[in-house]
Amino acid sequence: MSLKFSQLGARQTESDIARLMTFALQRPDVLSLAAGFTDNDTLPLEKLTKLAMEIRDEGDLGALQYGSNQGSPDLRSVLARRLQCQDGVDSTYGSDRTFITNGSQQALYLAVQTLCDAGDIVLVEQPTYFVFLEMLRGLGVKAVSMPMRANGDVDAVALALMLKGYAESGDIDRVKAVYLVSYYSNPSGHSVSLDCKKALLELLAAYDGRIALFEDAAYRELYYDRPFEAPSCVALQAARGSVPVFYTTTLTKPFATGLKVGYGYCTDEDWLSRMLAIKGQQDFGTANYNQTLLLKVLTSGLFDEHLRTLRMSYYKKMMALDEVLSQNLADCGWTWERPEGGLYIWASAPPEIETGFDSKFHASAIEEGVMYVPGELCYSECQVKCKARISFGVLRTEQLKQAARRFARAAKRFSLIKTL
Amino acid sequence: MSLKFSQLGARQTESDIARLMTFALQRPDVLSLAAGFTDNDTLPLEKLTKLAMEIRDEGDLGALQYGSNQGSPDLRSVLARRLQCQDGVDSTYGSDRTFITNGSQQALYLAVQTLCDAGDIVLVEQPTYFVFLEMLRGLGVKAVSMPMRANGDVDAVALALMLKGYAESGDIDRVKAVYLVSYYSNPSGHSVSLDCKKALLELLAAYDGRIALFEDAAYRELYYDRPFEAPSCVALQAARGSVPVFYTTTLTKPFATGLKVGYGYCTDEDWLSRMLAIKGQQDFGTANYNQTLLLKVLTSGLFDEHLRTLRMSYYKKMMALDEVLSQNLADCGWTWERPEGGLYIWASAPPEIETGFDSKFHASAIEEGVMYVPGELCYSECQVKCKARISFGVLRTEQLKQAARRFARAAKRFSLIKTL
Repeated sequence: MSLKFSQLGARQTESDIARLMTFALQRPDVLSLAAGFTDNDTLPLEKLTKLAMEIRDEGDLGALQYGSNQGSPDLRSVLARRLQCQDGVDSTYGSDRTFITNGSQQALYLAVQTLCDAGDIVLVEQPTYFVFLEMLRGLGVKAVSMPMRANGDVDAVALALMLKGYAESGDIDRVKAVYLVSYYSNPSGHSVSLDCKKALLELLAAYDGRIALFEDAAYRELYYDRPFEAPSCVALQAARGSVPVFYTTTLTKPFATGLKVGYGYCTDEDWLSRMLAIKGQQDFGTANYNQTLLLKVLTSGLFDEHLRTLRMSYYKKMMALDEVLSQNLADCGWTWERPEGGLYIWASAPPEIETGFDSKFHASAIEEGVMYVPGELCYSECQVKCKARISFGVLRTEQLKQAARRFARAAKRFSLIKTL
Repeated sequence: MSLKFSQLGARQTESDIARLMTFALQRPDVLSLAAGFTDNDTLPLEKLTKLAMEIRDEGDLGALQYGSNQGSPDLRSVLARRLQCQDGVDSTYGSDRTFITNGSQQALYLAVQTLCDAGDIVLVEQPTYFVFLEMLRGLGVKAVSMPMRANGDVDAVALALMLKGYAESGDIDRVKAVYLVSYYSNPSGHSVSLDCKKALLELLAAYDGRIALFEDAAYRELYYDRPFEAPSCVALQAARGSVPVFYTTTLTKPFATGLKVGYGYCTDEDWLSRMLAIKGQQDFGTANYNQTLLLKVLTSGLFDEHLRTLRMSYYKKMMALDEVLSQNLADCGWTWERPEGGLYIWASAPPEIETGFDSKFHASAIEEGVMYVPGELCYSECQVKCKARISFGVLRTEQLKQAARRFARAAKRFSLIKTL
């Protein structure tokens, strides 16, 4: 008496983000240290509208027409040059290797769709971006954690042994990609070192191009002081050859998320053409008006001007959050490091404290009126229970401080309960 | 030495649209009766920019923030009311059943993803929307043509026998949906009659909700004189119960395609929640700025005002095209009907003439400097070879007439070659 869903359809369950967002709507009294939203105060509504007026004054009717599936050639060309410039390399990055997507999320989805059948494996950092883990679950792809070093990098030596194990057990063909959140990671704030990237590419090169590298650089431009030193894996791969690299980032997270435009860069032509074929089926091209606006944002210098404002703003908020947490949370045995970019403080509770949605600590936090992202969502098997992702993206400084005090009160209260 | 793609990735080939678009870029001298683009002269750049300025004046920073995965509640509510009003029914259409997508294309993709595994079957009209056929091929889903009546409707009696055949052969569980392009169809211009919709829903009801109905209403609002009489299958289903109906249309095809916003309406809650889960993985929400703009476009009355202009404009262009074709093409044995809405004339050559990309007729048309969409692309098995989709969307009237004369010259030339 009802529909029989596809394997993909049958696999779907309510997402953790949806759960967080529904809760946030139901309880507006609860301050959110969970949302990865950006700061209202810095949103460039005035300047963006000026550019919209420029499009009108130029009579650029093309902005309101369909664009091409791969995306605006002018925008792709600006982005390829920008990436090359960030990587500080001479070799030319091809605009034909660049494609425009509905946020970096769609680029990641296409990359996984083209490579992974249900049951295949993508290797991830510990911790990693929880929305990517949700996507993998949705597609029936298994996320497997890579061994990590104390400095937060992947342990390439231990990973080599792990891959050897897969080769011996005959499962190596199921291992399709390594996924890195390589700059000011969501959630950990860690950036992947140059040495680590080199070691990973060298290791994967031994697998003859059968294991791809996904590099998610969403927060690369959101450094506070200076860019992180390591270039992208695109730059490093160029010298090494055989590892297919897919790089993606967002144009709108560090500008105006409401425009939802990202891009991908793929070193493997065949792979790229298959991603584009699927994009053709999903939407045959990202909104051309948004692409036209973002081309103007980039070429007018507004993008870089805005980034300078944002970096200062997020740095100040991070410091304000850190100060309140230092004064109120450190006593409860929690630890964290100050990030050098991005929107998150990644905090560790004493190891016996669990922070998941169903934990007593989470209940305490909600009672105190504050939300956060339970750290266990950021592990492929929820194997670490005592972490919390605390975002300083969306709240204004005063609210942020209040939320941090609430969070600390929950920690304190919970410590007391625990010792009773 | 190279990537092993997923089954989905391995299946991808260059698309027909991509082929058409690449050719169009290489040969700007060739006039396009192929593109389903809209008319530059009518694009509302001035008015849209005014609404962008209103957003600025209202200080609506939310427009530049992330929206929700399902889409703006206000926009969904306006759309649900609009659909209910078009259908002329009393029952309330739920905004919670409505979801915003990156064009209607993404809505269709989600509907197919949730229901169909590779090898499953979707039943389609003859002819049908060729981009949908491409999507099905990309997903490994088999499109099977339904028997048609002379009036252009599906033959529900013959379809009943066909379904019975599937039931007897044990393949009925692979039949997941019936796909209708129900108003001023791309390509045929045909609208599905009320009787046909009723008969189809009645037939499908006998299958206990296991076969869904997809209704693609992309051109519903682009009638010339008055709306087509039949309400949507959402309205008809309400009285009949068990058939899950998914309805989709675009907001931007009849306004400004560069904004790329569509929506879906789904009568089955479980199905909808699974589509939304996948959307969450693909992009977690359509660009919120575009949704904010379109909400204003709808509530300000601009959408309806613009539609009135468009209807007049397309009607005039259709008549101009029809006139030139009548004077120049009819003699060659070609036939067509004047559509009552939409952007296409669906023309039939004498049955012995093939019009496919590799046909002599196609070569003649390109030599004369005109492109069209070969009709065989619009059939699941390319079983009809002698049709052409002639679009009057994008060209201005004078160019359109010139293109039509070129097309007729090709037909004439080809007729001459044929008789030699």
